[in-house]
Amino acid sequence: MNLILLSADEIAADMTVTIAGRRGHHVTKVLRSSPGDRLRIGLVNGPRGTGIVENISGTTVSLSLQLLSEPPTEPPFDLILALPRPIMLRRILFQASSLGIARIFLIRSRRVEKSFFDAGLLTPEQYTPILQEGMEQSGHTWLPTITVFKRFLPFIEDFMRDYGLLNSRLVADQKTGQSLASLTTLDGSERMLVAVGPEGGWVDFERHAFLKQHFYPISLGETILRVETATAVFLGQLMLIRHMASQGTKSAAISACSHCDE
Amino acid sequence: MNLILLSADEIAADMTVTIAGRRGHHVTKVLRSSPGDRLRIGLVNGPRGTGIVENISGTTVSLSLQLLSEPPTEPPFDLILALPRPIMLRRILFQASSLGIARIFLIRSRRVEKSFFDAGLLTPEQYTPILQEGMEQSGHTWLPTITVFKRFLPFIEDFMRDYGLLNSRLVADQKTGQSLASLTTLDGSERMLVAVGPEGGWVDFERHAFLKQHFYPISLGETILRVETATAVFLGQLMLIRHMASQGTKSAAISACSHCDE
Repeated sequence: MNLILLSADEIAADMTVTIAGRRGHHVTKVLRSSPGDRLRIGLVNGPRGTGIVENISGTTVSLSLQLLSEPPTEPPFDLILALPRPIMLRRILFQASSLGIARIFLIRSRRVEKSFFDAGLLTPEQYTPILQEGMEQSGHTWLPTITVFKRFLPFIEDFMRDYGLLNSRLVADQKTGQSLASLTTLDGSERMLVAVGPEGGWVDFERHAFLKQHFYPISLGETILRVETATAVFLGQLMLIRHMASQGTKSAAISACSHCDE
Repeated sequence: MNLILLSADEIAADMTVTIAGRRGHHVTKVLRSSPGDRLRIGLVNGPRGTGIVENISGTTVSLSLQLLSEPPTEPPFDLILALPRPIMLRRILFQASSLGIARIFLIRSRRVEKSFFDAGLLTPEQYTPILQEGMEQSGHTWLPTITVFKRFLPFIEDFMRDYGLLNSRLVADQKTGQSLASLTTLDGSERMLVAVGPEGGWVDFERHAFLKQHFYPISLGETILRVETATAVFLGQLMLIRHMASQGTKSAAISACSHCDE
């Protein structure tokens, strides 16, 4: 826990908060804090700041808060994920909220077992704590939203048709994709909507449906990566491209491409 | 299992092999293969190819082999990892062999619990099956080597001093690092030696020791990532930089940097 995550409605008018349970346990037993200690805090979808330990009673801790940053801006990534099995979903949700994702769409695809939709983790009560753990790990205060689509066609044909047309739309596809390095149309400033398929990949029907909705197929390399790894690799690469675009002259982009002008 | 992994010493002179156990179970129970079926096979540190199912008896399967590729070239990445707890190590080893790593160095650092070195997974008998599972998942046939250093100083001062001086040396460090986009000295063709620290990061002493051995500190973003995620993000970004360098004129590097010449 690199950040004590608080929600706005727990905070009293005098900018104090009392925490117990998991967070109280962390402060008293893991951090072993004493009154006067300063802890990193953050509000869900709000600013980060400092919490000064005022009082400890058992594992109940009261903090007085100083908010130090602006609220977070919306992360520039939305993630479409063919619903993975619950144990994998749990890890990916943690990872996604730690990397910074605005919206997550969990969708059906041919190679997704229908039973996964009944296997839990798909209600806010179940997934919010996992997303919050990712935020506590990473220090992000943006809570991703999750939307579940139990059928592929209504998602891709109806929902995607009207969805954020100014996004860059990318779909991970080892079969027809090319490296991001070959994609000349990204300028790195746009929002990015990124789709990652199931174990075993998309079927041709799905592949075509994505293309029809203006998704550009991207290969993450020659090898077949587990969904969790593919998601981290994909987002990591997109973050780098965004950085390069914002760097100005002396960027790795230029140097990585030193022969390009020859 | 996207590849049936075989070792050279199992293969008979007439290019047949008989498999049972886990692999036999996979072929008969998961793939439900019949005689005549063609399966993707690969030799550890050797070529990939096709195995034609000749005979099935229970879960014992005999295959005749056609080797189709050259043996793999050594992956361009070596990975230094502050030894994580066993459950995390298992996942990272799987991930590393699926992404393609030549050598893995598991080292002590101040924030690594000493007990992790006694917690198993550090003998070839224990880690080889995990690495092989990563290869079976990804289709890679390169088996990473693992070397364990129970003390930090002998690793960084003695071993690193003499180790592959032509490598690019990079250390993930949220505290002092900059984005890879700011690193102008990579040309993407060199081998890369990449260090990822423990949960909680390197301590200053370690930071300085890496700098002294010509490691360049890289930040993977504002947030604090779990070791597993950090490793995938870091390697994914380096893979992209290598691709960009090999792409020639029409690369994302150029386009991502369209304002650079202004």
